[in-house]
This record gives sequence, C-alpha cells and structure tokens, in this order.
Amino acid sequence: MIIVLKPGVSDEEVQHIVKKIESLGLKTHISKGVERTIIGAIGDEAILREKPLDAISGVEKVLPVVEPYKLASRSFHPDKTIIKVGDIEIGGNTISVAAGPCTVETEKQTIETAIAVKKAGANLLRGGAFKPRTSPYAFQGLGKKGLEILKKAKEETGLPIVTEVMDTRDVDAVMDFADVVQIGARNVQNFNLLKEVGKGKKPIILKRGLSTSIQEFLMSAEYIMSEGNLNVILCERGIRTFETATRNTLDISVIPVVGKMSHLPIMIDPSHAAGYKQFVPSLSFAAIAAGCDALLIEVHINPEEAMVDGAQSLNPKQFAEFMKTAQRIAGAVDKKIGTL
Amino acid sequence: MIIVLKPGVSDEEVQHIVKKIESLGLKTHISKGVERTIIGAIGDEAILREKPLDAISGVEKVLPVVEPYKLASRSFHPDKTIIKVGDIEIGGNTISVAAGPCTVETEKQTIETAIAVKKAGANLLRGGAFKPRTSPYAFQGLGKKGLEILKKAKEETGLPIVTEVMDTRDVDAVMDFADVVQIGARNVQNFNLLKEVGKGKKPIILKRGLSTSIQEFLMSAEYIMSEGNLNVILCERGIRTFETATRNTLDISVIPVVGKMSHLPIMIDPSHAAGYKQFVPSLSFAAIAAGCDALLIEVHINPEEAMVDGAQSLNPKQFAEFMKTAQRIAGAVDKKIGTL
Amino acid sequence: MIIVLKPGVSDEEVQHIVKKIESLGLKTHISKGVERTIIGAIGDEAILREKPLDAISGVEKVLPVVEPYKLASRSFHPDKTIIKVGDIEIGGNTISVAAGPCTVETEKQTIETAIAVKKAGANLLRGGAFKPRTSPYAFQGLGKKGLEILKKAKEETGLPIVTEVMDTRDVDAVMDFADVVQIGARNVQNFNLLKEVGKGKKPIILKRGLSTSIQEFLMSAEYIMSEGNLNVILCERGIRTFETATRNTLDISVIPVVGKMSHLPIMIDPSHAAGYKQFVPSLSFAAIAAGCDALLIEVHINPEEAMVDGAQSLNPKQFAEFMKTAQRIAGAVDKKIGTL
Amino acid sequence: MIIVLKPGVSDEEVQHIVKKIESLGLKTHISKGVERTIIGAIGDEAILREKPLDAISGVEKVLPVVEPYKLASRSFHPDKTIIKVGDIEIGGNTISVAAGPCTVETEKQTIETAIAVKKAGANLLRGGAFKPRTSPYAFQGLGKKGLEILKKAKEETGLPIVTEVMDTRDVDAVMDFADVVQIGARNVQNFNLLKEVGKGKKPIILKRGLSTSIQEFLMSAEYIMSEGNLNVILCERGIRTFETATRNTLDISVIPVVGKMSHLPIMIDPSHAAGYKQFVPSLSFAAIAAGCDALLIEVHINPEEAMVDGAQSLNPKQFAEFMKTAQRIAGAVDKKIGTL
Repeated sequence: MIIVLKPGVSDEEVQHIVKKIESLGLKTHISKGVERTIIGAIGDEAILREKPLDAISGVEKVLPVVEPYKLASRSFHPDKTIIKVGDIEIGGNTISVAAGPCTVETEKQTIETAIAVKKAGANLLRGGAFKPRTSPYAFQGLGKKGLEILKKAKEETGLPIVTEVMDTRDVDAVMDFADVVQIGARNVQNFNLLKEVGKGKKPIILKRGLSTSIQEFLMSAEYIMSEGNLNVILCERGIRTFETATRNTLDISVIPVVGKMSHLPIMIDPSHAAGYKQFVPSLSFAAIAAGCDALLIEVHINPEEAMVDGAQSLNPKQFAEFMKTAQRIAGAVDKKIGTL
Repeated sequence: MIIVLKPGVSDEEVQHIVKKIESLGLKTHISKGVERTIIGAIGDEAILREKPLDAISGVEKVLPVVEPYKLASRSFHPDKTIIKVGDIEIGGNTISVAAGPCTVETEKQTIETAIAVKKAGANLLRGGAFKPRTSPYAFQGLGKKGLEILKKAKEETGLPIVTEVMDTRDVDAVMDFADVVQIGARNVQNFNLLKEVGKGKKPIILKRGLSTSIQEFLMSAEYIMSEGNLNVILCERGIRTFETATRNTLDISVIPVVGKMSHLPIMIDPSHAAGYKQFVPSLSFAAIAAGCDALLIEVHINPEEAMVDGAQSLNPKQFAEFMKTAQRIAGAVDKKIGTL
Repeated sequence: MIIVLKPGVSDEEVQHIVKKIESLGLKTHISKGVERTIIGAIGDEAILREKPLDAISGVEKVLPVVEPYKLASRSFHPDKTIIKVGDIEIGGNTISVAAGPCTVETEKQTIETAIAVKKAGANLLRGGAFKPRTSPYAFQGLGKKGLEILKKAKEETGLPIVTEVMDTRDVDAVMDFADVVQIGARNVQNFNLLKEVGKGKKPIILKRGLSTSIQEFLMSAEYIMSEGNLNVILCERGIRTFETATRNTLDISVIPVVGKMSHLPIMIDPSHAAGYKQFVPSLSFAAIAAGCDALLIEVHINPEEAMVDGAQSLNPKQFAEFMKTAQRIAGAVDKKIGTL
Repeated sequence: MIIVLKPGVSDEEVQHIVKKIESLGLKTHISKGVERTIIGAIGDEAILREKPLDAISGVEKVLPVVEPYKLASRSFHPDKTIIKVGDIEIGGNTISVAAGPCTVETEKQTIETAIAVKKAGANLLRGGAFKPRTSPYAFQGLGKKGLEILKKAKEETGLPIVTEVMDTRDVDAVMDFADVVQIGARNVQNFNLLKEVGKGKKPIILKRGLSTSIQEFLMSAEYIMSEGNLNVILCERGIRTFETATRNTLDISVIPVVGKMSHLPIMIDPSHAAGYKQFVPSLSFAAIAAGCDALLIEVHINPEEAMVDGAQSLNPKQFAEFMKTAQRIAGAVDKKIGTL
C-alpha cells in the first residue's frame, strides 16, 4: 500500500500515520519527494485494505499495489483452470456451447429445442426455470416444474443442464437438478447467494453485472471460491453504457483482460449483450477469435412465440448455420467447438 | 403500443401482425406514412409487453406508450405519499435525517453515535448489522448481534432504527428489530428479496443500484408494492459513470424526475455517492434545495477507526455543524429538517 | 511517480528502469515489499509523464502522484479566482445568471428576451450565433448576423453578452462582439480552439464535454491558461450516462470537487443537463445550495416557436418566478443572485 | 413522427397541435387509445424534427419513426460502399491494415517503421503529424515537418499515408499530403472541420468519440457527405465506460450494427481502445471475425522510446506475428488481409 500525503503535511501527522501502520504489524518506508511525501507500507496489504487510512488527517490518497483477490488470480494459480462437466472440459481446447431457450415454457418446447441444438453441435443445454424479470407482472418462470422438464430434456438428449438460481432458499433444489448452476447478472453481488453456491460442488457460471468492474467480478468469483467451490466460469453478457443500439455493450476486451488477471475460464453470452438475434452470430465469432472458452446462446424453436426474450433468440435453422461458421473460426485459432 | 414496420413490408406480414394483436383482445389501427407503415395497438398495453413483437418478420421497432409500473406511478396515485414511522412523516413538510454509522461495531460506538446524532437533530438512526462487502475477506457485519445493539441504541435514544436486510432467510428477523428496512443497491433487482419484504408491513428504503435506470428503479418498487407493502422510500446513492473523482455520481435529477413519475418519497444518500466526507455537506444541501424528502448520512464517533467506510463518515461535530446550515436551506424552501 | 514492478522482475530489469529515470535527471528510491518491488521517482513528475514507462519490460503499472495541471490547480493558486465582466464579479459573493435564448433567431426575439431576463434579475445575456447542431440539415445559427443582433440587445439592456465560438477562424470576430466567449461541450478538447481563445483577453466559459473527466476538464482549462488567458469559468452541463429520463446527467458533485481541485469559478447549465424545462428550477436550486458561482439558463419568449431547444427553455414568466425562489436559497448560503 | 399526448389532454390542446403540424404541410392521424391519445404526423419527418413539439402543452413525448441521416443510411444506399485509395479497396473482400507509429518523431523512426509494417503485410501507413494531446505541456507533433517525413516514407515504401487533421486552417495542407485524412475522436462533432473535409475529395477516416452514440456517429458522417465527399470510413476506437482495466471499451457490436444501419465501411482501432499492447491482437482477431473492413494499428520500432502511446504500440516483430494469425482468421470468413 502506498500512502500519498498532502502537501504541507506536518511531522506529527506523518508520525501518527506511521505509528498506525506499524501497530498493525507492517513496516513503513518514507520517501520525501519534491512535491509530496509518500509512505510505503511493507507487509500484507490485506490487513490495511480494511482500514480507513484515507480518513486520517494528512492523507491525500491511498494507492493499493496488489490485487484484492487471491484464489481467482493468475499469480496465485498460473495455469488456466479446466472445469469438468461430465466429459466436457471448459477452459481447454474445445469451446463449449450452451444453447437453449431463455425460459422453459413447456416440455415439448424444451425437448424439441434440446434435440435441435444437440444436432447442430451444442454440448450443453441452457434453460431458465427461475427467471429474474424486471416487472413483477411478467412471467416468472415455471420454478421447480421447470427443473423437472429440464431433467427430461437431459434424459432425452444427454446434454448436461445449465440453469439459474436466484434465491438462497432454492440452492439445494437447483444443485440437485443442474449440472452447471448459473448466477445471473443481477445477483453478481448477492453475496449470500454466492456463499451458498460456494458450498456446493457443481460448477458455477457467474454472470457479470451491468456495471460490475472486472476487478469486482473477480471478487465475486472469490466469494464462491473462498467457500470451497473452485469451479467458477466467468460469463460476460454486456455492460450498461450510453449506447442504445444494442441492449447492452458486449465488453469483448474481457477475454484478454481476464486471461491476464485470472486462470478461470471465460464464457460469452452474445444474446443478452446484443438483444437482437441478427447481431448474435457476429458477436459470437468475435468471441471465438478473441479466445473465449465457451458461449451461451439463446435458441427457441419459435422465437415469435417465446415468452421471454424472443427478439434475441435464434431459431434452430439459424443456430445450425451459425455453428458451421463458428467451427471454421474456431479452427483458425486451433480450437474445436461443441461436438463439431 | 406502437409497432413501426420495416420499409417494404408485405401485406401478408402486416396482416400476420394485426391478427396476432387482435387475437390477444386488442384493436389495431393502421397508419400508412410516406416512409413507414405504423400499427397502433389499442387496449391494455400490459398484455403486449410480454409478447416478442419485435421477433416477428416485418417489425422494425416497438414503441411502448405507457409506463410499465402502476402502483408506483403518479398517474395511479396523484397525491404524494406520506410514510409514517412512529410519529415521523416521510414525504411531508419535514425532511427526515437518518444518521449513524455505516456498520454497528460495538455497543459503545453505536450508542454514543446515536446520542450524538440525536442531539444534532437527526430523527432516525441508521446502522448496518448485515453488510454487503465487495470482498469475502472484509468484515461482514455483526449479524443478529448487531440487531440487538441497535435495539439498545433505540431504547437509549428513542430513535427509530433503519437497517439493511440482504437475504430472504433473514427478512423475518430484521423486520422484528427494524423500524425501517433497507434494501441495498446491490439487491435492487434481487426480486425474491423484494417480494419477501413486500409481504411485511415495515416501511422499506429501496436503494437504487449503480446502473439502475429510474424506470427500472420504479419497477423494483412495484415488486414490493405488488405484494401489499405500499410503504416504499426510494433512495438515490449515486450511479456508476466514467468519473472517478467521486466514488459514484450522485444523480440529483432523480429528485424532480421521480417527483414527476411517482408519488413515493425520495431520499438521498450523499455519503455513498461522494465517498469522501468533505463533499457530503454540499451534496446534502443540493438535495434539500432540489426537494428531497429525506437524507441518509454516515456519522461515526471516530471515522479514523471505522471498520467500514471511514473516509466518507462525518464525525459528530461535523454533523452538528452540517445540520445548522441544512436547516437554513430547508427553511428557504419552506421545510423543516429532522427535529430542528 | 511511483513505478510498481511485476512479481519476479529481474535485477537487470530493475537496473534498466532506474537508469532510464536517472538519465532524465530524477532520483530513484527502491522499496522491496513482500509482494512487489516499487520504484519511487523523485523530482519533476512532468518529465516522466511523457515517457512510456509502462512499455518497459518488468513494469506492472505507473502511478502518478501529483495532478498534471498547474495553472488551474488550487495548490498553485490557493485563493478562489474572481473573474470580472465589466462590473460583474464571477466567483465572489454574487451568483451570476446568464440567461437568454439558446439561439439568436430574430432581433425582436432576442431583444424582448433580453429585456425580460434583465427585469427578472439576470446579469448576463446568453445567445448563440454559431450553433453546433448534431444534424447538418438543422438550423446552424445566424453567424455574424447573430452577433450584430446580440450587440443591439446589449445596447438596449446593458447586459454583457455570452456567445459561443466553434471555429479557430471565427475567434477574432467573436472576441470583438462578446463579453464572455463560450467553448461548447463538443469542443472541450478542440485543442487548437482552446489555444486560440487563450491568446485573447475575454473571459472564457469552458463547457465540460459529455464524457470529460474532471481532470481532463481542468487540463482543457490549462490549455487556455497556458496561452496567457487566466479568465476561465468552468461550466458543467451534464455528462452522458445510461440514464435517459434526463437529456444528460447533471454531475452536481463537480461543485465541491472542482472547489477542492481548482481556484476557477464553476457555472452550472441546468437547461442542457435536464433537457426538459420542468426540471430546470430544481437543478438550479441544487446548484445554488451546493455552492456554484454562476448559472446559465435558457429562456425564450415563446418556447413553442423556438428554433432550437424549445423543450428545455423557460418562458419569461417561469424565469421570473424561478429567480424569486433562487434568491431565497442563495440567501440561505449567504449569497446574492444576479441583480436581486 | 408520433406524438403521444398526456392523459387528460383537452380537445383544444389536441386541435392546437394538429393545426401546428398541418401548417407545416404534413397530414395528421389521431388515434384514441385506452390510456393515451396519439397523433401520427404523415409526411416528411425532417420538417418536424426541427420543431419543439415537446414544448407544446399537452404533449408527453415525441417518437421519431425514421432515422435522421440519409446519405449515410443503408436504406438510401443498399449496397456496401467500397472506397478506393489508389489500388486498395476498403469495404470489399480484403481487410486493409493501416499500421505505423502514433506520432511521427523522426525520419528514421518513420521510414524504418514503414518498411517493417509493409514487410509484415500492412497496406497503409498511419502516422500523426498534428497530435491532439490532453496536456498543453505534452509533445504536440511535428506539424508540417511531420507531413514531409510521411511523404518520404511513402516514396520509400509506396504505402499510402493516413494522417490526422485537427484544425479547419490546416485542411488544405493535410489534404495535399495525405491519401486518407483522419478526423480524431475528439473532433467527431467539430462540425466546421467535418464540413471542411467534406469539401475535399480524399477519403476520410472518421473516428467515433468516447461518448458518441452510433446514431450521432452516422450524423457526423452525414456532415461530411452532405458537402459532397461520400468517401467516409467509420472508425471505432473504444467508448468511455466505467471499466478501467482497458483504456476504453471497444464496442465490437458496432460492426454488425453499422453494417445494418449504414453502407459505409467500418474500421477498428484496437490500440487506442485497449491502451495496452498485449490486448491488441485479441481485439483485432475479434474485429476480423465480426466482419470489420479495416484495422488501424500502432506499431513503433522501439515502443519504450515512443514519444506518444508507447504502452499500446506493437514492435515490428510482434506485428509480423500478429499478421500471420490475422490472416488465418480472415481466411475463415473468406477474406484476405493487407497484402497477405
């Protein structure tokens, strides 16, 4: 930690700060510059992070030196993490594709979509049973009945299930049914929910919130990991900016940035980022070329009749065509995609 | 709902859309312009809001005409709502001031702060027992023990208690102790938590999230209200922008905008918005002059030793001075403040 | 300047960086911490700011210690600057009010508005002759003819004129007519234009751009000041955020933040920030209470017929009422407003 | 244009608005819904765009139906535009690569870089002579001497020159030397500069500003095109968001979105977006896969000694390696890149 002092700070103020830092077991190092005096605190920065050093008289600003996350950091774990879901490896040489409807509506819709996405090369089935909706008057998902339908779709196709949990009280039930548990963007800092899924063993897809910085995103992964569950897949789904031509702005830079800061696999959800199906293929191709580990794509057998997010869902034919081009781009970066 | 069609849309496409809308019980009104054909859907817009009209071939964009919230809207309830907390009226002629520490640390710290803020004119005591922290390694609050301490502080001073709930499983416990229950910014779209506090009777302070639009903010209030609890106080605490000179950017416009769109009282939290105590008085004065109904201000007996948010906490002397100027500005807009 | 090195940096890399810094005439100070080695560069930070230290192998990040602006900074000039426009003092105890039409349309419209705003207590007349418009097909202002009309309005009322310049080629002409020259938000980093107005003597209103950080804003002021013109008034007019309920988001925090960082007066333009006239009074009252030095308000004798920005213009009656309340709030913070 | 009226609007108010619209030569179409009355204005929307309809009593909001740009729009010009620079075609089947130093520093540096990027497959040379710098104390470029050096580099390598113009007074000089003229992000709404380059014949690279919406971006292109110069290349270089891990946030969605809205070619500048050279390859690969028409990449023979933007510049070896992978990804989408 580096503490920059105000111009004209008094000797007493400097001594007070030094004493404070040393009382916590760290050493200090004072450097008097031309314009400012600086105190370096040497030792475990985590101890100081909790202390309001910038509330002390004479302090101008406090500059942290090391990142505040540990288990999620690349320096802690230099090799890329590979997360297993049955035979599937996320984080390795194959880009996984979790496809399916935004929401489980009926058994027929879910199973037909599952069969279609499997045929086109997807290796995971996504589908929402518990749905976070902006309006209390909107369809809130089928809940546990939706989980049962997903189970049948899995029996039918063999595709592992990705589904969301929204409430600490539902974690056990969702963990029972799901192969991969999703934490939605709105819950990225629902810390009790993060802790609860951290106690389980199923891999977690953690979606970045609309205004979550990458550092905060890794801190949320750290919440899950610090409870014992190290199987976290980070999922970018667009951030909120001033631009309204897309539903959100896909922050494609997250791929190389997370790759540098963390060992965790990175997934891209182009459907929620774009909000319009015609932009989904381009954004997916971009993600593949930039080095993502997985994709999350909304597919509906009849988008016009979808109960949620119809405008951003591909139909099975569009998805199958998409997968063919995706395979070529994956090949250009020496990877495979889904089961292709 | 207004549906703008693409240039060159075919008659069959138009008829398909018309039939779809009419099958839902609404009437249609076609208007052929020079550049575009437009379909007006006449009837209850809420029915269409759930349908993915923009997924239909030939549709360029869908423009809603009415706001999606009802109970929270000014057109539904033209008079300003006044929320009672014991004898205190929030939304009326007196600006309430909820002051106190970010976090309950000890009985001594809490009670001393409570006595000090009461003396300076605050009429509510704020204090966190359950704390949402970005880092899993940071102090997470005293939990139920913190609630007990707040109860003692209330017995000592008579100040009603404002405290946060973060988990659906804790709602009953917090409702028992608190006079006003706070939903934090990170949980503004934790819909299950909103529903749960909506089943209670205690007034709710709902904080706006860092990237919550005002419309989404009112939809979150609607979640609480639709469960039966109409006592919602909307609290602005800064939004996330590119500017880093303040912790967040206080969106002061929320005061007149919410005043136009909704009948609910509006509270301002300058401490979290600013992030630095020296900016708190200015922002509070701005809020009073702009017409806010309440303020939420962090005060700590010794900010330098605070376990959370020390840099943004006023000490009792600073708070007392602040209240004096605040009173003068409140007077200039024909209002009173706290117990002054 | 503080240079944080990567974990595992080699001795050669450290020596290379040290040599580089010392070759520029600065001293270095190495501090080996538990997790990182840090180099402090002691001397004139401005010399290093131009060097791409973060392009050097072994460097993790570079943390500047002092602000990059000088003439605009509070530490360079501790007393608040007062800028004189004739008898008017901006930055002192009276809040100036520059009111008038967004755009000069006709002599009649301009003079009638000037008479009305003067009567209501404004002490400056604003009006645009050169107009930056998003569309090339929109009315672009009357140009030099507009300047002539403003001159007549000044002769009629005695109000000093505030008007915008957009092109380096027009600076001389505008400087001849205007008492205060405005640089619009879109030109806040039009550095050649800044230099050109910096060579003149007339006070400059510099508007903050939609995505200009406060530090960049002060750097733009520095451009003007470094050419010799120290009379810069900083004007906040809303920043661009995700929120669409207002045209832009007024960053009210700019008032205390600029007050801390700089000695220059701060003006608020609530009309462009809000975009809707009904929000203009609240935002202005907020600005006064927060401590602004001046206001810039759009007034049109007949907003419904305005050629530009009608929706955000007050009519003379609304402006006169507004000024009365504004006077009361100014009084509560021991200030006067306009000529009231 | 659709005008949504307030609930409870009076018949007189409706008639007043209708009369107003009809007096401008448009027809009206009134539709009384359950909750709102709506007026459709039929005719040329451009006429109404200039009128402050939302300033009229009884109007709640005004919804435009068609886009405000014409020459830049896809509906006006359905085929993709191909822009010729000598033999090079931008917008066709080959992705152009403009590479070179941020700033022309010396003849040696410029020519060596030009030779290196040509050898690696670039087909255009970029280099700044006039440099927009945040600080007045930073190196401002060599100006006309820089243009002379670029000319020599062109003679040496045959690579056409891309360079920036910042001031209306320099347009003629830059047009003389450059093959492609660049308008920087800070000047995207410097409308006089746009008009001036619109009078020339050289192709223009128009960079998107940090907070320019895509619609505003196309309006700025329209400014250039409306003066007669139809050769506009749109360049995305990152927008400003809350995220600080990258210098700006590359809005990759611009590629499919602009492809839908406009016929103009789209270029991506990953160097300014990322701010760090290690992220440049990933972002470029993403852009190629998403369908961009051109890339703008900073390359410096010795980034550590660069006078501007060293941290984001590739060295020649890194650039050559980058081009090889880029070629493979271009091949996967059936395109070529540069001269490879």
